[in-house]
Amino acid sequence: MKVYLDCIPCFMRQALEAARWATEDTRKQRTVLDEVAVLIPSLPIDATPIDMGRKIHRVVKEVTRTLDPYREVKRQCNDHALKLSSQFRKRVEGSGDPLLAALKLAAASNVIDFAVTLDFDLNRSIEESLTNDLDLVDYPVLKERLESVEEVLYIGDNAGEIVFDRIVVEQLNRLGKKITFVVRGEPIINDVTIEDASYVGMDKIAKVITSGSDAPGTSLRYCTEEFIDTFNHSKLILAKGQGNFEGLSDEDAPLFFLLKVKCPVVARELNTTLGKIVLRAGE
Amino acid sequence: MKVYLDCIPCFMRQALEAARWATEDTRKQRTVLDEVAVLIPSLPIDATPIDMGRKIHRVVKEVTRTLDPYREVKRQCNDHALKLSSQFRKRVEGSGDPLLAALKLAAASNVIDFAVTLDFDLNRSIEESLTNDLDLVDYPVLKERLESVEEVLYIGDNAGEIVFDRIVVEQLNRLGKKITFVVRGEPIINDVTIEDASYVGMDKIAKVITSGSDAPGTSLRYCTEEFIDTFNHSKLILAKGQGNFEGLSDEDAPLFFLLKVKCPVVARELNTTLGKIVLRAGE
Repeated sequence: MKVYLDCIPCFMRQALEAARWATEDTRKQRTVLDEVAVLIPSLPIDATPIDMGRKIHRVVKEVTRTLDPYREVKRQCNDHALKLSSQFRKRVEGSGDPLLAALKLAAASNVIDFAVTLDFDLNRSIEESLTNDLDLVDYPVLKERLESVEEVLYIGDNAGEIVFDRIVVEQLNRLGKKITFVVRGEPIINDVTIEDASYVGMDKIAKVITSGSDAPGTSLRYCTEEFIDTFNHSKLILAKGQGNFEGLSDEDAPLFFLLKVKCPVVARELNTTLGKIVLRAGE
Repeated sequence: MKVYLDCIPCFMRQALEAARWATEDTRKQRTVLDEVAVLIPSLPIDATPIDMGRKIHRVVKEVTRTLDPYREVKRQCNDHALKLSSQFRKRVEGSGDPLLAALKLAAASNVIDFAVTLDFDLNRSIEESLTNDLDLVDYPVLKERLESVEEVLYIGDNAGEIVFDRIVVEQLNRLGKKITFVVRGEPIINDVTIEDASYVGMDKIAKVITSGSDAPGTSLRYCTEEFIDTFNHSKLILAKGQGNFEGLSDEDAPLFFLLKVKCPVVARELNTTLGKIVLRAGE
């Protein structure tokens, strides 16, 4: 997905949010905004939003001299999600179509962000998200595709929700599929890294690999050759969240995107509405 | 009022909105964003939001080669407001405190923007705005101050709402006050100019002067010496709308601000909440 003009003011908003997360020094926050602003004219017309996201967070790290400002909150998100996971796992396992139930849950849990501090809030956010309209018309296509493959490449997104990705992986395992779960190569916002995957036990039920990407999403231009090779040989790829959609939507690969639509530009790109949970086969 | 860090992403949003208003050429829109972005680092720490607003709209005019992209819509706003004015005038005149009723109406009509295309919508918007919480605790202070002055300097804001400013001016005239109504020196967004004041007949009931400002608000640094002299000799100044508040809130002058709070930063500055109609004596 290419950068839309509407993304540009949003980059500045993201820069401010990230700067505030990393430091309380308003002069440094202003420096971040200034340095991000001057990058805007050099953003190529074919850039994706995560190209700029990557640059923004590099500026934040440099200006504030913090390598992983989200580490603590990621841990909290994982802990909250782990506390809730057994009750949601029971619901999934007790439903008529456990894989579908798990996919919905994993997409709904994409509401988790840094603001969540109470189990109750997280629980309620997921419940609210699950009761919203779902746009899962491509689920039968996914089911059919699954029948002809033995392995699935599952590209993760954020900390916290990885606990619910694990429930999807469990269901895929039950169907006899081997899963390779992909994390980012470096800490970037609240995105999943190797550390998160180990923390929630993803490595017990899937092969965990890194894409090498330090962008807030997966764009092949920032991935290792090893990952690109794995990607190119995959028969079915499930990519979670907006960042992975933004970076991979133009790739010619057997992709399915599972995400909660959090921005109007992505909604337009997917021909859907803000807030919806979407499962969409790549074109 | 100084620029807050939150204003900076908003400047980019305003630039995009203004660029889209002035041209359909997306390359020119992108050029506007690029040129505005590189201005951000040179924005002084003591700048006001309207300093940047002025620069943004200069860039838009230069890049798109349009001098007054809002002229037609301003005319439409004035026409819609004129159609509604007699019914609102009757309400004001029939109320227990016609001046207070007129002030509320003039602030509520600050909801008028370019999106308003139907009389019904405008009517409804004003009605909704009037039923919101009002923060008019300084009205008794204004009433008291009015008793000791013969003249009021009334600094206007937008086209459309100027029709309702006229109703306030009528009420002030009834109280025996002479009014000098101030318009911008050049077309800037949908702000009032001499042309609007004549169109709605403001010149029939008040002396109309220009501040000389080409900013979307009144900042003395962009005003003519003549206006600054008038300003400095005024015993009571009523400044309408956010732009005038942003530019004048730090002046040591007998100011009253009347506005609808449309942005969270202004809400914070005024210690009130978004959407409120506020009458506040300057400090």
